Amino acid sequence: MVHADASTFAEGITKEAAYQQILDQAEGFNLSNAAALLWHAYQSLPSPSNQVNWAGFYTFDPLSPANRPRLILGPFQGKVACQTIAFGRGVCGTAAATQQTQLVPDVDAFPGHIACDGASRSEIVVPIVVPAASSGEGEDGKNEKKKVVAIIDIDCAVVNGFDEVDREWLEKLADLIARSCDWP
Amino acid sequence: MVHADASTFAEGITKEAAYQQILDQAEGFNLSNAAALLWHAYQSLPSPSNQVNWAGFYTFDPLSPANRPRLILGPFQGKVACQTIAFGRGVCGTAAATQQTQLVPDVDAFPGHIACDGASRSEIVVPIVVPAASSGEGEDGKNEKKKVVAIIDIDCAVVNGFDEVDREWLEKLADLIARSCDWP
Repeated sequence: MVHADASTFAEGITKEAAYQQILDQAEGFNLSNAAALLWHAYQSLPSPSNQVNWAGFYTFDPLSPANRPRLILGPFQGKVACQTIAFGRGVCGTAAATQQTQLVPDVDAFPGHIACDGASRSEIVVPIVVPAASSGEGEDGKNEKKKVVAIIDIDCAVVNGFDEVDREWLEKLADLIARSCDWP
Repeated sequence: MVHADASTFAEGITKEAAYQQILDQAEGFNLSNAAALLWHAYQSLPSPSNQVNWAGFYTFDPLSPANRPRLILGPFQGKVACQTIAFGRGVCGTAAATQQTQLVPDVDAFPGHIACDGASRSEIVVPIVVPAASSGEGEDGKNEKKKVVAIIDIDCAVVNGFDEVDREWLEKLADLIARSCDWP
């Protein structure tokens, strides 16, 4: 049985070890528990990670018009947030539209940043992608068409809250969630 | 646009006023934002409410076998929690099976309590019910058949964390969510 102790991270744990613990536990977790894992990991790390003020997910909104795809707020920990975000808008929408991680050291310098919370100063957004159903897959699988089913979104109350370590491990987590969850 | 400031509750606010603010804001919120509202309201109140250590939702699991309905973990704030709960099991499962609020002053005295987190000492669970599709409604509407689509679940780290004020307002919130969300 899943237990609250899974949210406990050892004192003095490194960022890499905390992410490894998240990966070890997240397989079989749904997005609600994954958001809790991320939140409690960041709170247990030294600055700037313990300045994370929002951690969670947006998912593809199945009610989006076909020509205007949007994200809808999923499970998270932190303050109330924007409920829908159009693909292409702000940091989250850009990650969804480009299928590329957005590592933003200073959100005020990001064109079109959506300020759901003025306290957030830096952000990392990682798309969760799965093969598109009608995939025109090449022989080597490299040209396989992908679609965004969700994004991981983490905000920090200080600038430069995230680095390449966060990018690397959050992309591993996105891969795991893409494989281990049932997506429509 | 929904803004993080919606999570701010005035210093010295009464429990009734905090719940009123939740009701005023929750219409149009999805469960993710509603969980954040509840969490931040409790944190801003005096004891025992500020000892709330988990606030969120379980929803009816559409993948349940017809003869063994279960809940699946929805959006919440707090530590990692049990991911599925059978109707009838523990406080949450009892609220789902009976369609009745469970106000439990001491969880250790509740038969079959599921201890997702040993730190939780009291709990209130309020079912969110909607008319069943194939409803055999009486002429006066009173015999309308209902189904549970979700539950509100709040845990507290001290005994007697909740009272009749919590019951009254959480039942109002459950009514609002039943009406304002799209349920399958």
